[in-house]
Amino acid sequence: MPSYTAPVKDMQFVLHDVLNIGQSDIPGYDELDRDTTAAILEEAAKLSEGALAPVNAIGDREGCRLENGVVRTPTGFAEAFAQIKEGGWNGLDLPEEFGGQNLPYIMNSATGEFFVSANMALNMYQGLTHGAISAILAHGSDAQKATYLPKMVSLDWTGTMNLTEPHCGTDLGLIRTKAEPQADGSYAITGQKIFISAGEHDMAENIIHLVLAKAPGGGEGTKGISLFIVPKYMVNEDGSLGARNGVIVGNIEEKMGIHGNATCVMNYDGATGFLVGDLHKGMRAMFTMMNEARLGVGLQGYAQAAVAYENAVAYAKDRLQGRDVTGVKNPEGAADPLLVHPDIRRILMDQKSFVEGARAFTMWGASLIDRAHRSTDAEADGLISLLTPVIKGFLTDKGFDMCVQAQQVYGGHGYIEEWGMSQFARDARIAMIYEGANGVQALDLVGRKLAQDGGKHVMAFFALVKEEIASTDDPRLTDLRDALKAASKDLQAAGMFFMERGMKNPNDALAGSTDFMHLFGHVCLGLMWVRMARAAYAALDAGTGDQAFYQAKLATARYYMARQLPATALHLARIRTGADTVMALAEADF
Amino acid sequence: MPSYTAPVKDMQFVLHDVLNIGQSDIPGYDELDRDTTAAILEEAAKLSEGALAPVNAIGDREGCRLENGVVRTPTGFAEAFAQIKEGGWNGLDLPEEFGGQNLPYIMNSATGEFFVSANMALNMYQGLTHGAISAILAHGSDAQKATYLPKMVSLDWTGTMNLTEPHCGTDLGLIRTKAEPQADGSYAITGQKIFISAGEHDMAENIIHLVLAKAPGGGEGTKGISLFIVPKYMVNEDGSLGARNGVIVGNIEEKMGIHGNATCVMNYDGATGFLVGDLHKGMRAMFTMMNEARLGVGLQGYAQAAVAYENAVAYAKDRLQGRDVTGVKNPEGAADPLLVHPDIRRILMDQKSFVEGARAFTMWGASLIDRAHRSTDAEADGLISLLTPVIKGFLTDKGFDMCVQAQQVYGGHGYIEEWGMSQFARDARIAMIYEGANGVQALDLVGRKLAQDGGKHVMAFFALVKEEIASTDDPRLTDLRDALKAASKDLQAAGMFFMERGMKNPNDALAGSTDFMHLFGHVCLGLMWVRMARAAYAALDAGTGDQAFYQAKLATARYYMARQLPATALHLARIRTGADTVMALAEADF
Repeated sequence: MPSYTAPVKDMQFVLHDVLNIGQSDIPGYDELDRDTTAAILEEAAKLSEGALAPVNAIGDREGCRLENGVVRTPTGFAEAFAQIKEGGWNGLDLPEEFGGQNLPYIMNSATGEFFVSANMALNMYQGLTHGAISAILAHGSDAQKATYLPKMVSLDWTGTMNLTEPHCGTDLGLIRTKAEPQADGSYAITGQKIFISAGEHDMAENIIHLVLAKAPGGGEGTKGISLFIVPKYMVNEDGSLGARNGVIVGNIEEKMGIHGNATCVMNYDGATGFLVGDLHKGMRAMFTMMNEARLGVGLQGYAQAAVAYENAVAYAKDRLQGRDVTGVKNPEGAADPLLVHPDIRRILMDQKSFVEGARAFTMWGASLIDRAHRSTDAEADGLISLLTPVIKGFLTDKGFDMCVQAQQVYGGHGYIEEWGMSQFARDARIAMIYEGANGVQALDLVGRKLAQDGGKHVMAFFALVKEEIASTDDPRLTDLRDALKAASKDLQAAGMFFMERGMKNPNDALAGSTDFMHLFGHVCLGLMWVRMARAAYAALDAGTGDQAFYQAKLATARYYMARQLPATALHLARIRTGADTVMALAEADF
Repeated sequence: MPSYTAPVKDMQFVLHDVLNIGQSDIPGYDELDRDTTAAILEEAAKLSEGALAPVNAIGDREGCRLENGVVRTPTGFAEAFAQIKEGGWNGLDLPEEFGGQNLPYIMNSATGEFFVSANMALNMYQGLTHGAISAILAHGSDAQKATYLPKMVSLDWTGTMNLTEPHCGTDLGLIRTKAEPQADGSYAITGQKIFISAGEHDMAENIIHLVLAKAPGGGEGTKGISLFIVPKYMVNEDGSLGARNGVIVGNIEEKMGIHGNATCVMNYDGATGFLVGDLHKGMRAMFTMMNEARLGVGLQGYAQAAVAYENAVAYAKDRLQGRDVTGVKNPEGAADPLLVHPDIRRILMDQKSFVEGARAFTMWGASLIDRAHRSTDAEADGLISLLTPVIKGFLTDKGFDMCVQAQQVYGGHGYIEEWGMSQFARDARIAMIYEGANGVQALDLVGRKLAQDGGKHVMAFFALVKEEIASTDDPRLTDLRDALKAASKDLQAAGMFFMERGMKNPNDALAGSTDFMHLFGHVCLGLMWVRMARAAYAALDAGTGDQAFYQAKLATARYYMARQLPATALHLARIRTGADTVMALAEADF
């Protein structure tokens, strides 16, 4: 069975050495000194290592079962979930008035990485509830907040998001679920929703479904969509549970992974729903919390890679196979450990440099969300809107690749379920798909975010890169800064190409959208590695802390720059070929 | 459920338009005119589509079950296997004296693609038997051939290859299975073998295990290894089956994929074994058929991508989602088909250009094997030895990627097992691992094959590329030839880097081995696409056949050159950074 040890030290390095959160002017960050974050992270680590990780493989093996309309979660899930609940983890960043602790969102992300690495399927029950809470917080009435939030914050009740229908996922304008206005001001919701994570299960007293449906008079397409609260059990005036509402689970899906999370077909048959926010403005309401939700999925991508990497390292140190060609390293043993082989090192360094870069990128993103939400900083809001598809798309594509490579380190054992490496890859696979498939992320980035507000946010990003490069003339950083500069130039050139060609033919931009998303992702990780290297040198110069730890950061930074960042040139080369070869084939010739 | 339609026309294009097999001087190829190959391919297509593909998903869902020492294959497998058997497919390229048809090996590969696309797990029962036959053919005594081959060629008996043990896969020098000489000239085999595909099952009367074991006096490491035949049931003088031998299945593994194939732990407890070939020369015997076996695995990689592509295309044409940004294409529908979106096109063109290039590459490889074996052409033998790790490693890495991308076209449905796209990815995953993990292929390529016979074979490859480029001055091919030239230059530069740096520090070469394998793979597919484009122009100029088909080949060639081939520059850039950043970290810092 795989192991999990939460990377508390690495997380603290990002939060304090790199992002310097204790000194940040973001409201609430002044409380986050090293001792405070250490206490929180260590508690989260303990829970992740001791309670969540041990049931991860069980969840994969047993999966969820639908029995007489009830979904049974895997053995041990309820007990582990109870510990998340008791620890108050769901309310970490939520308002005190609803039972939360009102800490910054970045602490939800930082602890979330541990939970997701330990048990992604289980963590989703909480994660979706958190998303539903955000929607109600942003758009619900005071009465709705009072009715639903305290129980959802405490995880007595969980939440879901109901968007997809059998014939539509990305294109929500096509949804058919109907909302008929009733005399009492509620709506009767009728229709079928699919792919509803945690749609039904046995770990909560009530389930609060957030449902997109069409009420009369809203017009065609996405304009006619409204958002509704549909509780599984009606909630009485006094907060007690009333009648069963007309929503039932029709089926649960057999999936490639995240078996421990019930992916449900939900049938709404005149279920009572309550409008959230304005009528016909449901899309806006649903997408308010999109940045958070998508950052959370990007985090899943790298968090799975993180735990896969940990295990690949352990195996590479333990498994004896072959000899170091430059000289025997383990003369007493029958062979040297895998770790001596350069190609194994390459895989592990790819993983390490990705995971640590992704962690910094995601936490930086979380700090931008805090800045945007807690100080209503429009620039931070614009920047995180721009970066969100990159975090989601790039980190999940790469995260999955890294899990596959971690399997590879295990050779044949990587393919055997018992060893657990297959589960990391299978679980990570979903993150490339849900919450907007990665192709949709790329489309959002190139088709929308790039030109948003006159291109102001991408300009702000380039200014940040420039600022980082100009921030020091430390000659020890010159090689890293030069590499970042070159990669950033590729990104600018790609943006210019889109501007010039995309005007005449939008397909010239869209054909390069995924390459652009990856190019952007590499520049972001390059930026993170320059920042991390600067922080490492600062710590080394100060002579404090674990010197080998900081030296390893520098070595990893140099690996990323040497081996990963040069991908920007390939992405640019592909982008520059435009749409001609992509669109050349007639439909019949595929 | 996914569909499968065997690409007979594409295969004929490769065999006749590109490789021109009917006019080849390879012995036996003169029989392979278009009508003959059409008849064979259409029969194989019928079997694949009608019998093998329909039980593929069943095999995945049910898997194999171990019941009281008997492995039960999935519902319908035995019936489908009986049809492979009755069709005489296993003997297609095997000697007539043992019941085969003695056709060239290339026809085994061409039909094999269809079988593997239709049902990889089922096809393995035959494929492993074929491999065991090759080993006995090459190294067995006449008596052994007479005893085992007729029944194995007919598939009344199947075969296995027993190499791996719990503590050793790649490093076979570590094996512990013992062979004790007996008075009657046989050996008593004792030990445990793992990952034995088709080690036990209910579809054959007998199973002939080929087992690597250590007999006394052979010395340390791989030198002491010999190869043995260990039949499940002893074979009497008259060919009838005798006593049960001392080999039993201990367990079957739960795997990520190929569930329909039983992956067995085999326990040998003083089982009677018969030496094949020379004592202590087992490694040589086992590796004789390595080129074929590895080519067969490379084929699995692209064959899974081929069927995944077929289904992704069907879904992209059928699924309505969003609108073409350049103008509505399906005004009567609620949305346009996925196929209008450039990013979906990109995915499909990646797949199409890979699969068709890989098919040509693999069939070219098979023709080199025929040339080497049927005319004992040492140059062809050297060339295929060089190309084998590229075929195996590159085509399985990419093939898996393409299956993952095909899943992506399906959005959420790609993750649901019912749709079948997950199975293609999960099945394809093993091909990167078994028959020498891809990192081992890269090591074989860079550490052994590149310098073999003084670098003669890689020189021969470069000469072939030059020859192709010089073979025509048709201006319509200039862009393609230039692209190939540039890619080939990158490959030469990488080779030079290894020569210069690898002498001083072998790690400088080994750290770039996987990049080199991919670089080489791209150049090979580039070469194939120039050849295919030349063949397409020739057919277009002749005005024969399906003009749209040949135009599509040209469009696909140009896509590959524009979007895939530029990866060579990235691989070269990575290679040139050598081992420094790869090996920089201390063991404790991982």
